[in-house]
Amino acid sequence: MKTTAVIMAGGKGERFWPRSRSSYPKQFLSLTSDGETMIQKTINRLLPLVDMEDIFIVTNESYVQLINEQLPDIPAENILAEPVARNTAPCIALAAAVISKKYDDAVMMVLPSDHLIKYEELYRDTMRHAIKVASQGENLVTVGITPTYPETGYGYINFCSSGDEEMAGVYKVEKFVEKPCLEVAKEYLNSGRYLWNSGMFVWKVSSIMNNFERFLPDMYQGFLKMKEAAFTDNFTATLAECFDSFESQSIDFGIMEKADDIYTLSGSFGWDDVGSWLALEKINKTDECGNYVSGDVISIDTSRSIICGNKKLIATLGLEDIIIVDTDDAMLICSKDHTQQVKKVIETLKTCNRRDLI
Amino acid sequence: MKTTAVIMAGGKGERFWPRSRSSYPKQFLSLTSDGETMIQKTINRLLPLVDMEDIFIVTNESYVQLINEQLPDIPAENILAEPVARNTAPCIALAAAVISKKYDDAVMMVLPSDHLIKYEELYRDTMRHAIKVASQGENLVTVGITPTYPETGYGYINFCSSGDEEMAGVYKVEKFVEKPCLEVAKEYLNSGRYLWNSGMFVWKVSSIMNNFERFLPDMYQGFLKMKEAAFTDNFTATLAECFDSFESQSIDFGIMEKADDIYTLSGSFGWDDVGSWLALEKINKTDECGNYVSGDVISIDTSRSIICGNKKLIATLGLEDIIIVDTDDAMLICSKDHTQQVKKVIETLKTCNRRDLI
Repeated sequence: MKTTAVIMAGGKGERFWPRSRSSYPKQFLSLTSDGETMIQKTINRLLPLVDMEDIFIVTNESYVQLINEQLPDIPAENILAEPVARNTAPCIALAAAVISKKYDDAVMMVLPSDHLIKYEELYRDTMRHAIKVASQGENLVTVGITPTYPETGYGYINFCSSGDEEMAGVYKVEKFVEKPCLEVAKEYLNSGRYLWNSGMFVWKVSSIMNNFERFLPDMYQGFLKMKEAAFTDNFTATLAECFDSFESQSIDFGIMEKADDIYTLSGSFGWDDVGSWLALEKINKTDECGNYVSGDVISIDTSRSIICGNKKLIATLGLEDIIIVDTDDAMLICSKDHTQQVKKVIETLKTCNRRDLI
Repeated sequence: MKTTAVIMAGGKGERFWPRSRSSYPKQFLSLTSDGETMIQKTINRLLPLVDMEDIFIVTNESYVQLINEQLPDIPAENILAEPVARNTAPCIALAAAVISKKYDDAVMMVLPSDHLIKYEELYRDTMRHAIKVASQGENLVTVGITPTYPETGYGYINFCSSGDEEMAGVYKVEKFVEKPCLEVAKEYLNSGRYLWNSGMFVWKVSSIMNNFERFLPDMYQGFLKMKEAAFTDNFTATLAECFDSFESQSIDFGIMEKADDIYTLSGSFGWDDVGSWLALEKINKTDECGNYVSGDVISIDTSRSIICGNKKLIATLGLEDIIIVDTDDAMLICSKDHTQQVKKVIETLKTCNRRDLI
């Protein structure tokens, strides 16, 4: 059975303002020193697993041009532009429609476009295992991450033994839980029964669509229409019609939390969701004072800071735990404990009607 | 007797980097919201006291063009370009030479070009008083400032009563003292016998030159030569010759600390030497969080900070006691307790041979 990959690349990534903008979100940024953008890294780490022609990118109409520029080898018909963003369930139904029209049935890896993975070979081993589990029967597989500290910013997966000797290393999902408080996160970590929810899924098209039919029947009807129209002149019009009727729904709430036969694997491959500017010091090298510095920077008596220069010299004196990000038209200077509030700046810009900076 | 003013405008002002540069020092910057530069303010506040044609500006050759641009009404022959900087004593000898050639004798106010005065009418009243005292006899008058807090960054003037009923409000200088530690500064403040040394002087040309003859005889010979050459074709060559021979000497060490008949008046006119970026929050209005902000700035959860924008938006989040100064080619981000170390940045730039940014 064919293995395909569906990359979800419609996110807006407001937390990386001012580098990310509504017209240029995080997945199209390079946040590492190698110059590769997040989505380029996502594709490149998959190529040993799946052919380029079997990688499908679901995105917003306004990002198609960026994808063409950054990923010129992805076939044009594999770039699936949603007429309007309706969260992950419609996005997956759309990709499933195109893939099942092309291959009838196939294994689908569903992957975010803007996460980072340090140990790519370990990642691919985990994905190969997930593909194997998904291709056997009706299993829905969600890739969990072995937690290394009590993170309060992630959802968690509570698992139990599958009880099946043939499924060694694969666990039955007991339930998905929301972002916990620190106390609860510590309990999760100590229990050994929780994984971080990475938002990476593997299943056969037929498996997931059976669950759409059961739990999201209206969306399943849309899937059938989109499959019918795929690779025909009606496709764009059908998409518009279907997405107009779809409710906004995440795959987690819509299916994963309700379906049977959900399995998880515990991945340990240096995963980071790169959720805020703070990630830069985790995913890049820091200097002897704990600073992550890029661009033209003179830092004096400065420690544990993140300084991203642009075209001009940035000189820092006596700073601690400060994030500085320069761009051509806007600059952010933020204490580390305020990184989650970058969206307040965007809200202020909206209030001031300064959409050119958003 | 004529009253003249000598403005010392040769300073380099490294503490206002990156706005000030060696080619554009502090006296030519506007640091207040009215848009006037420091030297323009210095001249404008004097005009009720002295005619434009009696204002002399001593500066470096490289700043003559800037002075012409910022002060187009100052007569060209009143701009005295030192061939090389030799501190304040030679600067004053040069101005004295030109003034005494023009007027034989006259009262000279000697004034920095880069200080700020809030209450200009009170300032002029004090200066009028100083002019009166200076024009009587051989008195050298230094204008003191009534201290309002135990500043450790200024020199102090220790005074005693003049004992002369005709000299009410004028005090005999006991001694000049260097920048004190905080403990000593507090003692000075409590004693009621100390003023801040503002570096503003008033005397007759004949009074100060008698003291040059006594304490700096070589420089006095230079004064005679420069006076002889003033307003002739030989002036530039004579200046070059004299300044080449002058030792670097401040008027404070060279004369004021040695001479008799030094008097001081206590001024209370909102004086500030604008010695670092910290001055901006003293001399300008701050917002309800204690921030001084200029330019295009969004400040969220930010307090007691100084933010000087340039062309692009600066968004701050969660900052306290931080100074941000943006310019076209360089940016400073500095904690308030490091303002005296801005020169470290300049030293680093020198080491890296990046003279374009100094």
